[in-house]
Order: sequence, then C-alpha cells, then structure tokens
Amino acid sequence: MVERLYITYNDVHKLCQQAAEHILAEFKPHLMIAIGGGGYVPARILRSFLKKPGSPNIPIQAIGLSLYEQLNEADPEEIPGTKVTRTQWLDFSAVKQSDLVGKNILIVDEVDDTRTTLQYAVQELAKDVKEAAKRMGREEEETKFYIFVLHNKDKPKKGVLPKNIISGQQYYAAKTTGDVWCCYPWEATDIDEHDRLAAENKQKLADASSH
Amino acid sequence: MVERLYITYNDVHKLCQQAAEHILAEFKPHLMIAIGGGGYVPARILRSFLKKPGSPNIPIQAIGLSLYEQLNEADPEEIPGTKVTRTQWLDFSAVKQSDLVGKNILIVDEVDDTRTTLQYAVQELAKDVKEAAKRMGREEEETKFYIFVLHNKDKPKKGVLPKNIISGQQYYAAKTTGDVWCCYPWEATDIDEHDRLAAENKQKLADASSH
Repeated sequence: MVERLYITYNDVHKLCQQAAEHILAEFKPHLMIAIGGGGYVPARILRSFLKKPGSPNIPIQAIGLSLYEQLNEADPEEIPGTKVTRTQWLDFSAVKQSDLVGKNILIVDEVDDTRTTLQYAVQELAKDVKEAAKRMGREEEETKFYIFVLHNKDKPKKGVLPKNIISGQQYYAAKTTGDVWCCYPWEATDIDEHDRLAAENKQKLADASSH
Repeated sequence: MVERLYITYNDVHKLCQQAAEHILAEFKPHLMIAIGGGGYVPARILRSFLKKPGSPNIPIQAIGLSLYEQLNEADPEEIPGTKVTRTQWLDFSAVKQSDLVGKNILIVDEVDDTRTTLQYAVQELAKDVKEAAKRMGREEEETKFYIFVLHNKDKPKKGVLPKNIISGQQYYAAKTTGDVWCCYPWEATDIDEHDRLAAENKQKLADASSH
C-alpha cells in the first residue's frame, strides 16, 4: 500500500512562507502562473509572502491543465501514456504576450509527480514567449522560468525539464518525499480527522528520528 | 477601530463544505468562475465538495479583477469612486463562449464588501453570454449566475446585482458579518498567532451568547 502523507493547511502555509524567502533571494518573479486546481492555494499564499512593502502584488495568471493517462493506443499522435489538456491558458488580452518577454516567471503547482504537467507548462509557455520575442525583434532578452512545488516525489519522471530548471537553480520544492500519496487538506472530507492523521504522521517521524 | 474577524483555514474549509451542500441542492453548477486572488482558495475547496462520485470535477475558470478606488475626478468616463481592472478573463480558446449559454455558472469570491467587483463580474459575464447566445440564435436559453462568497458584510453596497441573485435565490454567503475586517489565513504573516486570535474571537462569541 502506498504510504499516505497528510498535509495540513498550516503546513502548506508555512512551506510557502519559507519558500518565498528562498524564491525572493534566488529569483525576483515578475509574474506568477498558478497551475489549477492544485496550484491555486499555494499561489495565493505565496502572493502574500512575495509582496514587498510599498510594492504592488505580483500578478497571478491561472492556467488549467488536466492530465489524462491514455488508454487508447490506437492513436499514433499520442505521447505514450499521457496527454495534457488545457482547460485555461494565459489571457493575452490582459497580459500582453510582449510583457512576458525578458521576465522572470514563477510557475506554481502542488506536486511534482510524473512531471508531465510541468513539462507541458514550461514547454508551451516558452513557445509563446519565443514567438512573441521573435515578432518584436527582442530575441536577445532572456525570459526565465522558475518552478515552485510544495512536494517533489523522488521517483523516475516522465516529464523532462530544461537543464537550468532541473539543476535546482530554477526549481524549488518545499519538501522532497518518497513515492507517497500526498493528501492535501483541500481534498479532505473530514478536515479534523485529516489534521489528526497529519499529527500522527509527524509523531511517527519524530519517534523514528529519536531512535 | 474596525473590529477584526480572524478566520482559520479550517473555518474556510468547513464553510465551503456546508455551502457545497446548499449549492448542490439549489443550483447545479456546470462551471465555476473563481475571482482571483481571493476566490482561488474557496474555489479549490468547493471543487472537492461539489464533485459527485463517478462524475468529473466541475471545471474552474479563474478570472482576475482588481479594484482601484479612483482619486482622479478629471476623467468623466469613470464611475465615481471605483474602477475595476481585468487582470485575467475567461479563456475562450479553452471554454467556448457557446459553452456558457444555457448553463449554471457559479461565481466564487472570498468577501462581498462594497459589491463593486461582483457587479462587474456578473455584468461582464452576462454580456459575453448574451453576445454568444445572439450569435448562435440561442437567445431563448437561460444562463444562470449564482454567487458564493465566504463572507457578506451587512452594509450599504455600491455594486448592484440582478434581482434574482440578490433576492438570495442565486446568492449564498457562508457567513454574514457586520462591517468588520475579515482577516483571511492566506494573508497571515504568523499563522499560529492568527489561529490564536481566531480562537479568541470564538471564545468571545461563546461568552457573549452564554450571558
């Protein structure tokens, strides 16, 4: 049975708080892109901690990506096993494509599991930026992507990310876990029981480290 | 001094859980629209509770609206006092405008304060839907909007909503408060202290009701 890791809201809040310090030191984001639904909560919390006094909030654009594990092997167009569908993309009537060029863009999601969704997000965003830069003759400007996730599962990944991201230079996971089942609080049907299980998780870890 | 109401994450979670029951009984949403950043967290939690076993998740589209209190009286185009700016709108490449026509659309935000943002959201969404319906000759189909907020402040509103919404038929606030300052957990710099203050709030209320 896959081990379950119960995460409370306050855990998520504190992970974002710590991560914000790290992200501000390493990377000054101009724009946050939240991959929904999982990225919504961490992105909203991060926004509070990335804000500098006297400066406006860092804008958030939400995108929606759904990952379907494909069973249909008859479709030769399919990348084996996985397909990402866009349910929402950047709104280029509000954020000009040109505004992305040369910027530091922070991509936020809850978990880096197979990495398929993250690969898709980075790849497609980079494509949009490249096209915009070309159109405007601003190809020499470097647009940087940085990924933040609450949890990275230490396991073989299907998705591939650019070297500068995966080297850790432009990637930050608040926690690295084994191949566990991350139980996020926003999925809990009984939040009090969820918190009790999270406390049990922590007690076990504390016991294990004291022996 | 304005009274402060401290709300914990678990409070928000439980408010959404209760609200979902009410919303499912009154209104069967086909699509959720989260007004960001405040609507991100309640929308994500609601999604868990609106899901019916065996059915897919209700899709969420995030929109971004910023409210600026206008000081510039030189601009005659301005509605006095307030201006709403879109930072993100629906992505009509993913959600076809035609898909909105005849649907039940649930709009989610954290707080109904002056109502300005909610008026803007309903008005602009209704406009998009009306245009799409007209283009397709589907003007007889009724598209319904329903608003969910965590807190409604019982105070004079600047924003106006359609009658069927404001009658309460298509509006649900998990809590109605006085003109207090709602302190949401995602804005807390010290979440433990925030929780302590929330517990104090609750103790005071309990004391007041027992006397």
